[in-house]
Amino acid sequence: MAIPTIPVHPMWEPYPRLQSDLQSVLQVIESHLQIHDKQIEATIKDLVYSGGKLLRPAYTLLCSQIGDVTHQEKERSIAVAAALETLHMATLIHDDVIDEADFRHGNPTIHTQQGNQFAIYSGDYLFCVCFTILSKYARTLAHLEFNARSMEKILTGELDQLHARYQKGTSIKDYLTRISGKTAQLFAVSCYSGAVTSQATRRQTMLAWNMGHYIGMAFQIIDDILDFKGDFNTMRKPTLADIRQGVYTLPLIYALREQPEQLHPYLDKKADLTDEELMEILAIVEKTKGIEKSRRLALKYTDKALKSLNKLPVGNYKETLYELTAMLLERKI
Amino acid sequence: MAIPTIPVHPMWEPYPRLQSDLQSVLQVIESHLQIHDKQIEATIKDLVYSGGKLLRPAYTLLCSQIGDVTHQEKERSIAVAAALETLHMATLIHDDVIDEADFRHGNPTIHTQQGNQFAIYSGDYLFCVCFTILSKYARTLAHLEFNARSMEKILTGELDQLHARYQKGTSIKDYLTRISGKTAQLFAVSCYSGAVTSQATRRQTMLAWNMGHYIGMAFQIIDDILDFKGDFNTMRKPTLADIRQGVYTLPLIYALREQPEQLHPYLDKKADLTDEELMEILAIVEKTKGIEKSRRLALKYTDKALKSLNKLPVGNYKETLYELTAMLLERKI
Repeated sequence: MAIPTIPVHPMWEPYPRLQSDLQSVLQVIESHLQIHDKQIEATIKDLVYSGGKLLRPAYTLLCSQIGDVTHQEKERSIAVAAALETLHMATLIHDDVIDEADFRHGNPTIHTQQGNQFAIYSGDYLFCVCFTILSKYARTLAHLEFNARSMEKILTGELDQLHARYQKGTSIKDYLTRISGKTAQLFAVSCYSGAVTSQATRRQTMLAWNMGHYIGMAFQIIDDILDFKGDFNTMRKPTLADIRQGVYTLPLIYALREQPEQLHPYLDKKADLTDEELMEILAIVEKTKGIEKSRRLALKYTDKALKSLNKLPVGNYKETLYELTAMLLERKI
Repeated sequence: MAIPTIPVHPMWEPYPRLQSDLQSVLQVIESHLQIHDKQIEATIKDLVYSGGKLLRPAYTLLCSQIGDVTHQEKERSIAVAAALETLHMATLIHDDVIDEADFRHGNPTIHTQQGNQFAIYSGDYLFCVCFTILSKYARTLAHLEFNARSMEKILTGELDQLHARYQKGTSIKDYLTRISGKTAQLFAVSCYSGAVTSQATRRQTMLAWNMGHYIGMAFQIIDDILDFKGDFNTMRKPTLADIRQGVYTLPLIYALREQPEQLHPYLDKKADLTDEELMEILAIVEKTKGIEKSRRLALKYTDKALKSLNKLPVGNYKETLYELTAMLLERKI
């Protein structure tokens, strides 16, 4: 029986080989979701079909072309990409519970449909599936330990962020440490793991790691800027959701350095800030050029990412990596 | 520097060797909890010191004496026991969020102290720590895959239970499938993993698995009975918390077979049941001997557990396994 093809996001149409490999990634995930209760299984499988962009698996697959590729290694890189996307899905489900988000990619989130309890256990289940896939396809126990430790860092990044909420004294260094764990870590692991499956040299795998790390840093800073600026592509207005939730990101941290006296009385109101007061905060952030400075730092990380990328060996994958990273960081996707 | 000894539950005092090994288990867990934010680290470490009974690691350690033990294998069995206890802690934290439980072992639960968000990420973090420890000490990738798949079963058991809530048609078979995943699986893995580290024969590891499975089945049935009967040892009154939450366990399922017409109108009220109505349900369960029948089934599983135990090779560990299982299933601990 032919395995039905799972459609992936239309952004991959210009890259047929990658598109087909990403479909295989989704098939690997789907084949590992096996639950006694078929209705529960269907709810979790809906996530696989929900049309996420699959950025992290795409980086894994592209980086799996850095070294030498045999057929077996390709299967392995697809499996590792599947494991990392499963991990990403698990953290998204738990993030949506925590942020009380109602929609993700235009679909109602699992906790809205099925309740928080179901969402918590579904996320836990996906964590386990991630490890099943990894242990089935990892090259060595040492690689697996490395992956498990990387995942720990992602979670401690999230814990750090929760704990830092409403802390007016958050420094730029604190912020960078936090996003390094929370976001950059998974991009770095995705690129690194791809390189490892292709038997790349140690120098090449380190370049892949660094590239992923810098991409993740730039990606998260830009994401945080969008909360202040809105997003022209999706027509999203600035929501200032982070400040509402006490998550103080880079534009605000820059502004706090310039105008602490003006900002502290607002921030002391914590969750009681009105929409009008939030707009006043936004005006101060704009006046102190918090957004501009943040954009400049994101550009520095983008530059560093492209420098690492440039040092990788020649190949078609490199062109695609370049285009993908440019699109991602200009937020055209 | 000497590593400070972490006190374990006083129930282990009659077994000095096991007591000392269980202290090592806690030390292994503690040494793997490393978080940038030391206050968060301290909150999670409090769990390690909270005085849980450590039943599952005790079974792992005892079963690690079934085969031949060298020094290295002892270290491995302590690590595997630590990984399984970490997994247990992760699921407890998430269970407490889901059940909205305020206390565990007499201490306020993590979500009461730090909020649901913190509790969800802490549990996720402990899942990752569990896998880090496993991948560091597992003998082979195949063992790890086996462990990951076992964990999946535990989570799908929990999901099944959530989904089966308020379903008056739950059969005895449904119930047994559910507790087999939710509870018996972790006891079975604990016993099996201990046996594996001791290079026991295939027959012996299967006996250990079966013993753990039957112990887990009896343990959960007895736990469910206590919700109807209260617990003489802890002076706990019957709380009927399961029925309140729509979790229909064995005593009620037996009663539903005898008196569906009497019980359905009550159960249709779901979460709106009054304390008085709950007492009326309890009276029907007692009249139809639902509790007696459940106890009889728990005894059957206990018998099967002891039969598997009896077939294991002679040794001191066997006596301790026997005493522990008897205590556990008579609920003297």
